[in-house]
Amino acid sequence: MARKSLLKPTTLATILLIIISFYAFFNTFLSPFINSDNTITPSNFPFFESSLLSTPIISESSNSHKVRIFLYDLPRKFTYGVIESYLIRSSSSSSSSSIDDKLKYPGNQHSAEWYLFSDLVNGKNLGEIIRVLDPEEADLFYVPFFSSLSLVVNPIRPNVGGGNSGGVVYSDEEMQEGLIEWLEEQVYWKRNNGWDHVFICQDPNALYKVVDRVKNGILLVSDFGRLRGDQASLIKDVILPYSHRINPFNGDVGVDGRKSLLFFMGNRYRKQGGKIRDLLFQVLKDQEDVIIKHGAQSRESRRMATQGMHSSKFCLHPAGDTPSACRLFDAIVSLCIPVIVSDSIELPFEDAIDYNKIAIFVDSDTAIKPGYLVEMLRKISTKRILEYQKELKEVKHYFEYEDPNGTVKEIWRQVSLKLPHVRLMVNREKRLVRRELIEPDCSCLCSNKTGTT
Amino acid sequence: MARKSLLKPTTLATILLIIISFYAFFNTFLSPFINSDNTITPSNFPFFESSLLSTPIISESSNSHKVRIFLYDLPRKFTYGVIESYLIRSSSSSSSSSIDDKLKYPGNQHSAEWYLFSDLVNGKNLGEIIRVLDPEEADLFYVPFFSSLSLVVNPIRPNVGGGNSGGVVYSDEEMQEGLIEWLEEQVYWKRNNGWDHVFICQDPNALYKVVDRVKNGILLVSDFGRLRGDQASLIKDVILPYSHRINPFNGDVGVDGRKSLLFFMGNRYRKQGGKIRDLLFQVLKDQEDVIIKHGAQSRESRRMATQGMHSSKFCLHPAGDTPSACRLFDAIVSLCIPVIVSDSIELPFEDAIDYNKIAIFVDSDTAIKPGYLVEMLRKISTKRILEYQKELKEVKHYFEYEDPNGTVKEIWRQVSLKLPHVRLMVNREKRLVRRELIEPDCSCLCSNKTGTT
Repeated sequence: MARKSLLKPTTLATILLIIISFYAFFNTFLSPFINSDNTITPSNFPFFESSLLSTPIISESSNSHKVRIFLYDLPRKFTYGVIESYLIRSSSSSSSSSIDDKLKYPGNQHSAEWYLFSDLVNGKNLGEIIRVLDPEEADLFYVPFFSSLSLVVNPIRPNVGGGNSGGVVYSDEEMQEGLIEWLEEQVYWKRNNGWDHVFICQDPNALYKVVDRVKNGILLVSDFGRLRGDQASLIKDVILPYSHRINPFNGDVGVDGRKSLLFFMGNRYRKQGGKIRDLLFQVLKDQEDVIIKHGAQSRESRRMATQGMHSSKFCLHPAGDTPSACRLFDAIVSLCIPVIVSDSIELPFEDAIDYNKIAIFVDSDTAIKPGYLVEMLRKISTKRILEYQKELKEVKHYFEYEDPNGTVKEIWRQVSLKLPHVRLMVNREKRLVRRELIEPDCSCLCSNKTGTT
Repeated sequence: MARKSLLKPTTLATILLIIISFYAFFNTFLSPFINSDNTITPSNFPFFESSLLSTPIISESSNSHKVRIFLYDLPRKFTYGVIESYLIRSSSSSSSSSIDDKLKYPGNQHSAEWYLFSDLVNGKNLGEIIRVLDPEEADLFYVPFFSSLSLVVNPIRPNVGGGNSGGVVYSDEEMQEGLIEWLEEQVYWKRNNGWDHVFICQDPNALYKVVDRVKNGILLVSDFGRLRGDQASLIKDVILPYSHRINPFNGDVGVDGRKSLLFFMGNRYRKQGGKIRDLLFQVLKDQEDVIIKHGAQSRESRRMATQGMHSSKFCLHPAGDTPSACRLFDAIVSLCIPVIVSDSIELPFEDAIDYNKIAIFVDSDTAIKPGYLVEMLRKISTKRILEYQKELKEVKHYFEYEDPNGTVKEIWRQVSLKLPHVRLMVNREKRLVRRELIEPDCSCLCSNKTGTT
C-alpha cells in the first residue's frame, strides 16, 4: 500500500520536468499572443498574476517595458464629427457623395491622424506601446482630434467657390478653442501641465490658434515650418511622414524600366522656401532626360505622377511652402531616389533611417546653378543607383501606414522614446524654485555643423 | 518492418512536444543566464544563431534591446596610471601609503569613474547595456579616463604644501591634451564626430581644458556649474550622484532617534552660489534644535557628520561652488530629509525619481529670511516626516554605487536612453546642407516655469 502511494523518483523527476516545461511553454509561446492583443493587460489576466516559480513572469514579459497610452474618449465632434462635416461640405459643393453610417476618412496626405486613432481603437500596430483603459495607469495621453482634416473643412484661406457652403457653418478655429475648453476640464491635463499629452497636427497649420497652449505636449508634426523653437523641436516632438498619394512600385530594383533621369510634377509656384521651385523649373525644363511638369492635385495628376516616378531614376523634392512635402514619400515608395532641395527639412524617424543612404541632398544655391543637377546625377553609376534602390526597399515599410511593421508602429516607438523627457520635465517642474534667469530655462542638443555641401 | 519504421502518431506528438518544450526550456531558463554574463554576445554563441522554430530567439531575448558599449583600452596612464600618480603624490607628502600591485582607487566623492570602469571590466551591473569586444558592433564608446582623480593629483589651484612634490611632475592639463591626441588617432572617434562617445568628468572642473573638443559626446557630470549650454545639457548628458562619504543609516524610519531638527556640517565659506552658506549660518546658528557647524574634509569630520545626519530629521543642502554637492547624497542614505537651497541644482535620474517626494526645496531669497526655515520645518508633522523617510528608503539604492540594483546600473540606463538622439544627430549631420542660419541649429526642451515657491 505504502509503496503504491509513493511515486518513483524517476516519475517525480518526469512530473517536475513536465511542470517546468509547461511553465516555459506558456512563458515562451502564450505570453506573446497575449502581448500582441494589447487590450489585455497583465493585471486583468489572472493566470499571469500567479507564478508557478519564483521567476517574475510579468516583469520579464515584453509588456512590462511598454509605454502605456490612454486614448481620450473625445466628444464625437472632434473625430467622426470632422469627417461628417467634411462630407457635408463635399456633398454640398459636388453633390456626388452621400453620408452614411460607415464614415470613411477621406484619402489625403494627412491621414496619420486617422490611422493612429483607428489602430488604437482596434489595438493594432501598437509596437512599443500598450493601450490602457484606466487613465490612472497611463504614462501618456493621446488626444485624437482630427486637426488636419478640420483645417481642410475650414481652411484659413478658403478656396474660391469652396468654403462653408450649404448653410453649414463649420469653424476650425472654434473647434480648436473647443478642444482646449474640453481639455481644461480634464484632471489629467492639468496634473502635469500637459507634458504627458500627445497631439497630432500634421498639416503645418493645424492647431495654429492654440499651439501655444498645447506646446508642452508631444506634437506629431510634418515639419517645424510654422512652429517656433519654443513650441516644437526634434527633442520634444515627432516628425511624421505624409501618407504617400501614389501607388508603391512593387517591382524589383533596376534601371531598365527607368528611362528618365529626373522627374518632378507639382505646383511650380509656392511661397517662402517654395520659391526655389520656379528657379528649378527654369534650369531643368530644357534638359532632354528630365521630366518637370506643373501639376495640381487631381486623380489624373496622381496617375501621371505614378507613371513618372515609377519610370525615373531620380525624383526631385523641392521645398513647398514649408520644408516638407508628401512627394518625398511618393518617391521613396516608388524606389525613385529622392533629390532633396530643401535646406531646412527635418525627416521622419531619422534615428532609425540614414537618409544619406536613400537620398541625395543638394543645397538650394548649388541646385539652381545651370547644369549642375543633371551633370551630377548623370555621373552616378548604375551600381550606385542600385545601391540606393536596395536601401529604399529596406526602409520603404516605414512609410506604409497600413503595414503592420510600418509607420503607425514606428510613430508609437518614437513617441515612447519621449517618455523619459516627459517624466524628467514633470518631476523637475514640480521642484523648481523661483530664480532669476537671464535666458530661458532650456536644455538643448545643437548641431555643430552649420552645413556641408 | 514497415510498421516498425513508422512512429505512432501519439509518439510523434510526444516527440514534437518534447522538442517544443526543450526549446521553450532553453529560451526561458538558459538565455537569462547567458544574458547575465554580458560578455557572451548572441553572435558568438552558436546555439542561438540557429532557431529550432521560426520564432526569432535573438530578437526576443532581452539582450536584443540592449545598448552595446565598447570600452576603450586606453593607455594605462589614463586609468591605473592616474591612481599610481595619486599614490606617489600622497606617499611623498605623507609617507604613509605604499604602491603595490593591487592599485586601490582612493575613496572620494568622484569615484563613479572607478565603479563604471571596473564594473565594465568585470561585466557587473550593466543593466540596459551590454559590453561588446568588437568596436564594429558598438553603439557607444566609453572613454574611461579618470579625469576627476587626475584633477586631484594636479589641481588647477594646488593646495599650499601639496602640489607636485617629490620631484614627480604630473600635469592634468597634459593628460587631457594627451587623451585628445590619442582619441584623434582612433577611427571610431572621427567616424561620427564623437557623438557616440561617453566621457566621465564628474568633478565640475574635470576635462576643463578640452571640454570643447569632447562636447559632442555624452558627458557624465555632477552639474552644469562650469559648463555652457552649448557644451552640456540635460538632453545630451547624464547627471551623476556623488559617492556618499558617510555610512548609510540602516535603521528603520522614525523620529525617536532624531532629536535635532536640522543638521549641517561643511565649509561655511564658498565662492559664487556657495556664498549662500555664510548667510544661512547667520540665520541658523542660534536656533536651539539646529546643528550647524563649520567643518573641513577629514575622517573625524565624517564621523561627526554621520552621527549628525543619523540623528536629525532634516539635513541642509546649500549650494557649493557649483550647485551640486555630495552632502545631498549623504543625507539621502542617512534618511535625513534634504532641505535643498541651491536654485540651479540639477538632480540625478530625475525621470525616475520625483525629488519632491524626498526633499524640500527652498529658494535662496526665502531661505535666508530670519526664522523662515526653522518655522517651516517645525510645522511639518511626524506623519509627513515618516512619508518622506519611506520614500527616501525606496530610492536609496539609486545612490549606492556598490548595490547591484544601484547607481552604476542606473547610470548605464540613463546613457542608453541617449542612443536615439546620438543616432539622430549622427544621421542628420551627414545629410545637412550648407545653409544660412541666424541662430545656432539647436533642438531644445524648455521649462515654462521660471519658478515656483
